Amino acid sequence: MVTSGWTAAPARAASLRRRGAVLERAILEAALEQLSTVGWNGLTMEGVAAGAQTGKAALYRRWSSKEDLVADALQAGLPRLGGAPDRGTVREDLLTLCRQARDAMFSRTGFALRAVIHECDPVQAERFHGVIFEGVVEPMIGLLCEVITRGIERGEVRPDAANGYVFDAIPAMMMYRSKMCTSEWSDQDLAEMIDQLMLPLLRPGGS
Amino acid sequence: MVTSGWTAAPARAASLRRRGAVLERAILEAALEQLSTVGWNGLTMEGVAAGAQTGKAALYRRWSSKEDLVADALQAGLPRLGGAPDRGTVREDLLTLCRQARDAMFSRTGFALRAVIHECDPVQAERFHGVIFEGVVEPMIGLLCEVITRGIERGEVRPDAANGYVFDAIPAMMMYRSKMCTSEWSDQDLAEMIDQLMLPLLRPGGS
Repeated sequence: MVTSGWTAAPARAASLRRRGAVLERAILEAALEQLSTVGWNGLTMEGVAAGAQTGKAALYRRWSSKEDLVADALQAGLPRLGGAPDRGTVREDLLTLCRQARDAMFSRTGFALRAVIHECDPVQAERFHGVIFEGVVEPMIGLLCEVITRGIERGEVRPDAANGYVFDAIPAMMMYRSKMCTSEWSDQDLAEMIDQLMLPLLRPGGS
Repeated sequence: MVTSGWTAAPARAASLRRRGAVLERAILEAALEQLSTVGWNGLTMEGVAAGAQTGKAALYRRWSSKEDLVADALQAGLPRLGGAPDRGTVREDLLTLCRQARDAMFSRTGFALRAVIHECDPVQAERFHGVIFEGVVEPMIGLLCEVITRGIERGEVRPDAANGYVFDAIPAMMMYRSKMCTSEWSDQDLAEMIDQLMLPLLRPGGS
């Protein structure tokens, strides 16, 4: 194929120069990589740019600060919760949801998120607590609502159970136990919480 | 009264020189005072000693660090929960307990405690979270256990409700809502939580 120097050059440049979502993903990956190697304190925009093989300008066009970049990187790196599980019983659905939330918080990104919160100053930490809320808690509560509503329709759950206090109970317990007892939630812990707290809370009452 | 110079001097010194619990209390009060004026960062052992009208040595004999002193001061300054309330129904008992815990966390010392946690570094913050646990949460759980056990005896509460997940539900919810929604718990909020979460959780089930 005969091409002029002019036509060849842009083609080569285009293939080297990533744009849009591809470049963004590379930057976010580099940010997570930096977090896992040098931590929040060691992370710099220069270091992330170098890791993504791009220039600082590409970062600053999208994110105006280290906090913004790291918050987006963590948000993007957290495992997504699936749709509302539908396994036949509210018990199985709750268990599945809880395991997904637990897996998100104890994923590599979940650990990175908690490490950043531990390392940064209190004002910045607020920002990253927001990532936990938007990335895990809020989606979970939406799915809890679906599961519980389906349970009400099936007669498994009392009709007045679809309220904010019931929905908050699971994330509240999971965060409390992780914080107070600095312990992970095993599958058995989750099953016990479902059986000893959530099912009694949800089932239709006697007269 | 005729006294020799020698006898008079020790008597005067003894009346000025506080010992034991009295001096300790003065020091702890001075620490809380410093926290409310200059905060965790501004607090120094010298400043506390001056505020307690004593010398640094009196502090260092009892507390080896600023953290130790402030943790003790906050612990001592938190309102004590009373004994397990006994107002006739588990609902009233739970409400009373929740109000006491809420009042402790929103007391002057409760605010000081949260301010310190916000100001200090993450390692130190662990220590002060411990003050919340030992000063409010742990006593509350003990009283919850008494209240719930009495409810079981009265037939108001299902027999299998006396377990750790049920006991943890109230402190978990109170800390979660305070943290996630940065909101205070009004008496109405507490009543709603009791009615929509705790009572359904506790009452005897249908067949």
